[in-house]
Amino acid sequence: MHLWEVMCIIYVAIKRAASRRHVPGLQREGWDNMQLKLRKELMDLDKVSYASDHIDLPEGGIDCGEGCTPYGFPPEMLRAAENFDMNRLGPYPHSTAIFDGLLEYWKGQFYLEPENLLMTDGSIAAIYVVCNIFNRPGARVVGIAPQFTDFEMTVRMLGMDYRPVFLRKENNYTIDPDEIIEAIDEDTSLVYIDNPNNPTGQIIDSYAVEQILKKAAKCGAAVIVDEAYGDFMPNQNSAAKFLEKYDNMIMMRTLSKAFGLAGLRIGYIVAAKPVIAAMRKITNPYAVSEFARELGGEALRHSYHIWENITDFARMKREIKASIGKGHLHIAQTYDTVSIFLLWHDDEDTDLKQEFYDRGVLCVSGADFTGLGRNFARIRLPKLEDFPVLFEAFRAIDEGR
Amino acid sequence: MHLWEVMCIIYVAIKRAASRRHVPGLQREGWDNMQLKLRKELMDLDKVSYASDHIDLPEGGIDCGEGCTPYGFPPEMLRAAENFDMNRLGPYPHSTAIFDGLLEYWKGQFYLEPENLLMTDGSIAAIYVVCNIFNRPGARVVGIAPQFTDFEMTVRMLGMDYRPVFLRKENNYTIDPDEIIEAIDEDTSLVYIDNPNNPTGQIIDSYAVEQILKKAAKCGAAVIVDEAYGDFMPNQNSAAKFLEKYDNMIMMRTLSKAFGLAGLRIGYIVAAKPVIAAMRKITNPYAVSEFARELGGEALRHSYHIWENITDFARMKREIKASIGKGHLHIAQTYDTVSIFLLWHDDEDTDLKQEFYDRGVLCVSGADFTGLGRNFARIRLPKLEDFPVLFEAFRAIDEGR
Repeated sequence: MHLWEVMCIIYVAIKRAASRRHVPGLQREGWDNMQLKLRKELMDLDKVSYASDHIDLPEGGIDCGEGCTPYGFPPEMLRAAENFDMNRLGPYPHSTAIFDGLLEYWKGQFYLEPENLLMTDGSIAAIYVVCNIFNRPGARVVGIAPQFTDFEMTVRMLGMDYRPVFLRKENNYTIDPDEIIEAIDEDTSLVYIDNPNNPTGQIIDSYAVEQILKKAAKCGAAVIVDEAYGDFMPNQNSAAKFLEKYDNMIMMRTLSKAFGLAGLRIGYIVAAKPVIAAMRKITNPYAVSEFARELGGEALRHSYHIWENITDFARMKREIKASIGKGHLHIAQTYDTVSIFLLWHDDEDTDLKQEFYDRGVLCVSGADFTGLGRNFARIRLPKLEDFPVLFEAFRAIDEGR
Repeated sequence: MHLWEVMCIIYVAIKRAASRRHVPGLQREGWDNMQLKLRKELMDLDKVSYASDHIDLPEGGIDCGEGCTPYGFPPEMLRAAENFDMNRLGPYPHSTAIFDGLLEYWKGQFYLEPENLLMTDGSIAAIYVVCNIFNRPGARVVGIAPQFTDFEMTVRMLGMDYRPVFLRKENNYTIDPDEIIEAIDEDTSLVYIDNPNNPTGQIIDSYAVEQILKKAAKCGAAVIVDEAYGDFMPNQNSAAKFLEKYDNMIMMRTLSKAFGLAGLRIGYIVAAKPVIAAMRKITNPYAVSEFARELGGEALRHSYHIWENITDFARMKREIKASIGKGHLHIAQTYDTVSIFLLWHDDEDTDLKQEFYDRGVLCVSGADFTGLGRNFARIRLPKLEDFPVLFEAFRAIDEGR
């Protein structure tokens, strides 16, 4: 044994002793012996999420993982950035530019008043606040599996009783609104539906959404319609148009996806005034920075870019769809203009994310969604110019090359 | 009765009938008949907070209400703003500039690892997440009254059992750490202390903080040390130096106060790794925008500005203190370099905020703090050049003019 090895052992022993000496009731790493009175669920459950603060792109490859559009934000927004007076970063944010932008964006669809709106740090923060206002002991939540994983994780971490309706392979993972309506009863506090659905990119038409709202209202349940990818579907399909009619409707959106502004952190909730008022009791009026309010407001005025880009998405998605059926890969029910879709491999042991990764495409594994396995992958379409990389990877995996 | 009056009445009647027809179980405005299964506390309790999304400055007057420093942010930060590539607003935030800035700011005080840190949308969002991880049914929380009102509101809105130690007029509202230590027992989940205290601006020395941590650790309770105004006291008085020794220590800071960046929305929590890990289960890794991370990181490197400015605060505060004792006004225990302090008027019916407002000074009413009344006011010192306005208002009220 060398001297330096002996010294290493002594050093490690001293470090361990030192770290143990100071611990007043809980281990420094991990959860054993934790005596602080944390929520039980937080200690019992592991978090599954594909949201991460770093991305691991294959060398020379393309990113089809992160949900934001590959086309970036509306370039007109840069003018607002140039004109922004940095001295406005000093005081607490007071700008109403986002509100004005939303009025412009939604005009003709529904009438928005300030008391119907809550701004949040992305729509993920919107989920935290909505779950919190409905978090009575044992509160029951109806959802769909698969759906946005972080919602399910949040309700479970908060100790709520989550009961998803599972989509089935034999239906090509198509959502059946009647099954959701059936799952809602007097004990339901909250219903959660992604529209478009994440990961499949399919759409629930607004007639079906209204039926869900109606049944939920009868049962005293609120319905979250998470439209994080909603800017990729026609605005008239948004649940926001039910704001006047259904006080249990809670619509969420974000500027992170179609507006390409994930780095700016803007989400928002539209709901009846008493529901927003309840949320304001456990949030602060300063959420979303002055800078983000100003730039986000400008971006909302230039949404026609999204409509230019979704033409490309539809073109790429149709090309994928047309090639399906000859090989190993299958595609779940999806809507052409939405930027994401779900593939699965007929061999359950295939790590589909890894297969794509090895061919230069980063995507999200099905293992990160309830009800799916690692032979599934969620893919966000790239720019049209990068499509050949994705399409070639898709073909190679499909053909077993 | 004129025709237009009749038409108005008919119009209103139709509007009312229409709005009633669509309501599925709850009134459109207010809480009567609300049948959604919201948390009980949210419906029962009214929120008291001086945080607001608009300010109402007296004409030609000065703002001594908002907590951010009147001296603004470190001007060097503007360089980071100029160099910022706006294309970075597209992807989800990944910058570690804030972490690097914190390492620089805290060097020599304690050793920070990424797993000890959680970034939040101001320290107010930090409060929400910490309360949430400790929100077991009936969880008991020990605090001080008066303290930052939004903390108390949050724990009560979440249904926790809040038990403040009241500061007493006969002690000049001085905090007695022994009373806090005595209030902590086996049933305590959480202890919350502002340091410096908001609204008085007094400091608890770190020896006393350690005694509180020690007692709490014995009882399995965590201690939030909210240092929102902590950059106005010597860094060595921060509870952060106990990170290694006490796993129940949760320190919060913000760049909204001393760094003058309230509009940028940056707060952070420093705590033991398992505690931060629990928080990460109900927060998202993307909190704080890419732009804010970059600029905040730069601001943290130029903290010497704060030390230049607090010399002015000390000078102004001493001048106020020296004038106290002859008239109607009294000042609570306070620390010279901290930007805020608490005054009260010996006539309980005096609306002290209004008295200052009428003399051109906006401040925060004592009515917004538990244990105080409207004859109290929290004043945040202005720039030295604006001090004559404040001092003249103070003298006039003190002398009953």
